[in-house]
Amino acid sequence: MTQGPVPVDAMGALVEALKRLPGVGAKSAQRMAYHLLQHDRPAAQQIAHALQTAVAQVRHCARCHTFTEQPVCTTCLDPSRDARQLCVVETPADQAALERTGSYRGLYFVLMGRLSPLDGIGAHAIGLPELIERVWDGEGAGSGVAVEEVIVATNFNAEGEVTAHVIAEALKPRGIRVTRLARGVPVGSELEYVDLGTIAHALSERR
Amino acid sequence: MTQGPVPVDAMGALVEALKRLPGVGAKSAQRMAYHLLQHDRPAAQQIAHALQTAVAQVRHCARCHTFTEQPVCTTCLDPSRDARQLCVVETPADQAALERTGSYRGLYFVLMGRLSPLDGIGAHAIGLPELIERVWDGEGAGSGVAVEEVIVATNFNAEGEVTAHVIAEALKPRGIRVTRLARGVPVGSELEYVDLGTIAHALSERR
Repeated sequence: MTQGPVPVDAMGALVEALKRLPGVGAKSAQRMAYHLLQHDRPAAQQIAHALQTAVAQVRHCARCHTFTEQPVCTTCLDPSRDARQLCVVETPADQAALERTGSYRGLYFVLMGRLSPLDGIGAHAIGLPELIERVWDGEGAGSGVAVEEVIVATNFNAEGEVTAHVIAEALKPRGIRVTRLARGVPVGSELEYVDLGTIAHALSERR
Repeated sequence: MTQGPVPVDAMGALVEALKRLPGVGAKSAQRMAYHLLQHDRPAAQQIAHALQTAVAQVRHCARCHTFTEQPVCTTCLDPSRDARQLCVVETPADQAALERTGSYRGLYFVLMGRLSPLDGIGAHAIGLPELIERVWDGEGAGSGVAVEEVIVATNFNAEGEVTAHVIAEALKPRGIRVTRLARGVPVGSELEYVDLGTIAHALSERR
């Protein structure tokens, strides 16, 4: 269905295509198409080229599943990383957040999602079998060092907690130390304005 | 500057490219890139293809300046249109809105913008000389029918009003009838909730 008075095919096709971007509806897609064609055609070409390059070249690291253009990503190949620690995150963005802290020197395993049975996202979709194999093979997926601790850094919402629980249950029987990021009061916040669930956690996990 | 731990070039380039879309910042661009590469690579390819096709094929109608893939758009070529009326709008989206009412059978002139001297958008950028020529040539740009009335349907904000004023001033000396869409109370609204400026206009323009 074209809404325009003149069924301009290439324009209509562009609006339909842009609507497939997450968070972009009909109005935004129309505004984007209009902006690109009227004011910024070089940007349109840059986006098209970047999309094609990324689709052709970006794949998943064979060891940690993050996005990479090589068979194994540079983090996994970095010999200065401590292969005894493995941090499990939901997305490359979460991994980036942890890296920015500068306080973690171990390796990662990126689930590329979180368990969500209602959406049909089960253990296989988030690579749980590969994670277990990665931890259990005793050789750290070719690094020659066995994993001693798995730090589960999934998000602190319902799905992230369930994912963390399932990972912990799967790994604990083999004697692997499974830890979780600490829950507590955020740095710089005032108790008065912190939600009760967070304060309760901070109390029970005081140290 | 890449924020990721692993400088994945194709991924970083895609995020940078998506940030050039209007209304898309760093976080949204990252979310879009992640979604496309992880969950919807066909969409990425569809968007890339649609962008390239649109950039290659979409141009402006020689008569009304709207987007089209032909030298002259189908609306301008439609012999059932009344060439004595010319409606001036800011964008193809505005034109589409007028078309959807089904109550206008004349032709259009699309400014592809509005006067905004502070942003460097002057009379030439919105095709004002071409509009004047189009109205004054006495032949309706090849349609053989002279324009008798110009309906100025620019938006009712500051820039749209200025644009309307400039168009009216430029056309009136030649005896062209220049009208403006009526301002008044929107259909279906209750006076109690209509803003004062609109009520004042509706009062002074009562009929």
